[in-house]
Amino acid sequence: MKNYKRKDTICALATGSGIGAIAIVRISGNQAINICNKVFSKNLEDVKSHTIHFGTIKNDKELIDEVLLSVFKNPYSFTGEDVIEISCHGSVFIQQQILQLLTKNGSRMANPGEFTLRAFTNRKMDLSQAEAVADLIASESKKAHQIAINQMRGGFSDDLKKLREQLINFASLIELELDFSEEDVEFANREQFNELLLLIKEKLTKLIDSFQLGNVIKNGIPVAILGAPNVGKSTLLNTLVNEDRAIVSEIAGTTRDTIEDVINIEGMQFRFIDTAGLRDTSNKIEIIGIQKALEKAEKAKVIIYLLDATADFKAQEKEIKKIKKLQNKMIVVVNKTDLNPNICKTLKKKNYLFISAKNKDGIEDLTKTLISIIDTNLSSDETIISNSRHQEELSKTLVEIIAVIEGLNNDISGDLLAINIRQALYHLGLITGEVTTDDLLGNIFSKFCIGK
Amino acid sequence: MKNYKRKDTICALATGSGIGAIAIVRISGNQAINICNKVFSKNLEDVKSHTIHFGTIKNDKELIDEVLLSVFKNPYSFTGEDVIEISCHGSVFIQQQILQLLTKNGSRMANPGEFTLRAFTNRKMDLSQAEAVADLIASESKKAHQIAINQMRGGFSDDLKKLREQLINFASLIELELDFSEEDVEFANREQFNELLLLIKEKLTKLIDSFQLGNVIKNGIPVAILGAPNVGKSTLLNTLVNEDRAIVSEIAGTTRDTIEDVINIEGMQFRFIDTAGLRDTSNKIEIIGIQKALEKAEKAKVIIYLLDATADFKAQEKEIKKIKKLQNKMIVVVNKTDLNPNICKTLKKKNYLFISAKNKDGIEDLTKTLISIIDTNLSSDETIISNSRHQEELSKTLVEIIAVIEGLNNDISGDLLAINIRQALYHLGLITGEVTTDDLLGNIFSKFCIGK
Repeated sequence: MKNYKRKDTICALATGSGIGAIAIVRISGNQAINICNKVFSKNLEDVKSHTIHFGTIKNDKELIDEVLLSVFKNPYSFTGEDVIEISCHGSVFIQQQILQLLTKNGSRMANPGEFTLRAFTNRKMDLSQAEAVADLIASESKKAHQIAINQMRGGFSDDLKKLREQLINFASLIELELDFSEEDVEFANREQFNELLLLIKEKLTKLIDSFQLGNVIKNGIPVAILGAPNVGKSTLLNTLVNEDRAIVSEIAGTTRDTIEDVINIEGMQFRFIDTAGLRDTSNKIEIIGIQKALEKAEKAKVIIYLLDATADFKAQEKEIKKIKKLQNKMIVVVNKTDLNPNICKTLKKKNYLFISAKNKDGIEDLTKTLISIIDTNLSSDETIISNSRHQEELSKTLVEIIAVIEGLNNDISGDLLAINIRQALYHLGLITGEVTTDDLLGNIFSKFCIGK
Repeated sequence: MKNYKRKDTICALATGSGIGAIAIVRISGNQAINICNKVFSKNLEDVKSHTIHFGTIKNDKELIDEVLLSVFKNPYSFTGEDVIEISCHGSVFIQQQILQLLTKNGSRMANPGEFTLRAFTNRKMDLSQAEAVADLIASESKKAHQIAINQMRGGFSDDLKKLREQLINFASLIELELDFSEEDVEFANREQFNELLLLIKEKLTKLIDSFQLGNVIKNGIPVAILGAPNVGKSTLLNTLVNEDRAIVSEIAGTTRDTIEDVINIEGMQFRFIDTAGLRDTSNKIEIIGIQKALEKAEKAKVIIYLLDATADFKAQEKEIKKIKKLQNKMIVVVNKTDLNPNICKTLKKKNYLFISAKNKDGIEDLTKTLISIIDTNLSSDETIISNSRHQEELSKTLVEIIAVIEGLNNDISGDLLAINIRQALYHLGLITGEVTTDDLLGNIFSKFCIGK
């Protein structure tokens, strides 16, 4: 955290890099107003917070731009410091000139995440909210956005803070007992304490469990496409991609490679994984391919198992049974119905979907089924965590809480309980930032983009 | 101009596309405040202009983002209409959601340049100023920026407007004479009129002449590197590029191809053109290459003629004489001084520069010479036009003005003078927008980026 000197006045481009109609350069710190007064045509000393001022920015006599300055006065700003946002014409040249001018006049370029770090240190938001700001900016789908914005607005921090306060209460009573240990008193009601611990345990478990879902939502829900060779897996992948190309194209940064494709369906990101065809073979390389396909299937959240409408059905269904343990997350889909339309009638009793990937028939039913599978996992009010740091600290907290519960049941002595409780408090505090270390902050904020 | 319906309320992303810490969505029109009231957590009806308001944007109950809204009330805004700028978190997803929400609630997506078009139609700026906004955003070098911002701030429009008003005065007097033509009166003082016309002619000629320079500044000053084969032309190009890579890298969008390289030196953009080596040859393909090299040299603003310090000098200097007509824009540079250090002494009486492109010796002297050549063409206060449309209309005006002057000298009748004067007024008016056609506006503003 050496480079995050907190008394400097910092500046950075806040809008995306590149050319736009306008761009915003942001400056924060106790010298923000002084520095702007040196280069702006109007004195900002006595203007009200949350007002906008038109004027020119000059480097000595040289006109850089006509700009609008938005003034936010301490503490009523994002960082809690004096903040000025300079809205200039969006040429890269002007952006650079203004930043150079601001640094020449006493501010320095902000480090990644430094504005948000200041918002955190000035208690404008807690640590998990600050982290959600980065997630929010990076979110590419509706669900990921929902999770991030809930977290930024408080999310589970309030709950955690309450639990932590209650835990602190009990902890201090237990520690008090230690001071009077020779008198064998109990200030902390063991029964109430046990209740609290069970509540915390339940809450923690729920949050930790939600991570798996939160994580897949953030990174795209993995859907493996399995099936025998030549059953149309790649055709299906292409069809899915084309079907939704219109939606995808609205959202930049969708990554693609040869065997995976991320597709945004109704605000959820799915990561479709094409796999090697499954069949009995003695070819060593093919065996490795099949092994990998099954590994992908195990890690996937959903499996689309493709059958061929024109091939022997009994043999194909026998194959499905071989991977019985994956059946609870499997959608069985019959492809090539265009070549064998009667199959829908023949198999109508089975809970299969029928498609022709080639003719794009039945694809909408398939995507609807996918959505509904994920939606049933997502009750709307449930808090979902998507940050692996939070998941890790929550898990560490849970370990300590379980130790305390067991200790209580086994009538373990207060001083031993106190150790576990302190550890639990420590890990909980790390999530919302009641406990911080410079390393932790450096690690979190260095991942931010500059200007945030 | 069909799609530029002027009563609609329009919206667009105003900042560069892609992810940033924040992004700005702009909305302009008489429904701007109403539309924002439907989706924003605070009523903006009675807030003052130039104030900023924190709150949330919701789609029904679904939270889209926490935002800052900047309110500019008619006529105190860029467009002259009610304008609201929504500063949201910079995710592409949020940008899209907010734009969709605004269009759902009664605004439509703005066409390219439509905000600036409205600023023009509401008389916030004239047409040449509006065009300068686009140039300003696109400017990549200090000089191009200077020309654009001078133009945006009024530039030559004020001068042109004054000349045009005086011309209109005389024109109306001449037209008045036509009404009294049977009485043979002269309301317009011919001598004064002639003076005015000569003044206009001088002004127009100066502006038209400035275009060549303005245009090269806008597009990069072409510098052809000529010389015999193997004299080190490509090495020089590479050295120039590397020398200035640090400066270039600050400025995005610099285009490169195999034979040309744009380099920003002290705020000026130079476009260096590597050419085929010049020599006597009977190879048909080589002859075509040499022909092209000479064509490039003719079009270039400056020629760097490279000599080889290790080769026969008399023969080389003989080659220079073959292109004598280009000598007034030629810098003769002796390369490979590392292999023949004595050459500097031997030739010190000649006005040559001495470099070693390989060792990067003497390159700074070379770039300084380039800068000084351009600087002598640029007296600081002179108005420079860089817009080809302006150049064209100015040239057409000049033709008419010359016709009027000749007519006056030949005592031509008032009704014939009036025709030329009207044409001159028409073309002058097209520059600043006193005269416009929908086609003209469509053509100008469709070249803008969306959001401006």
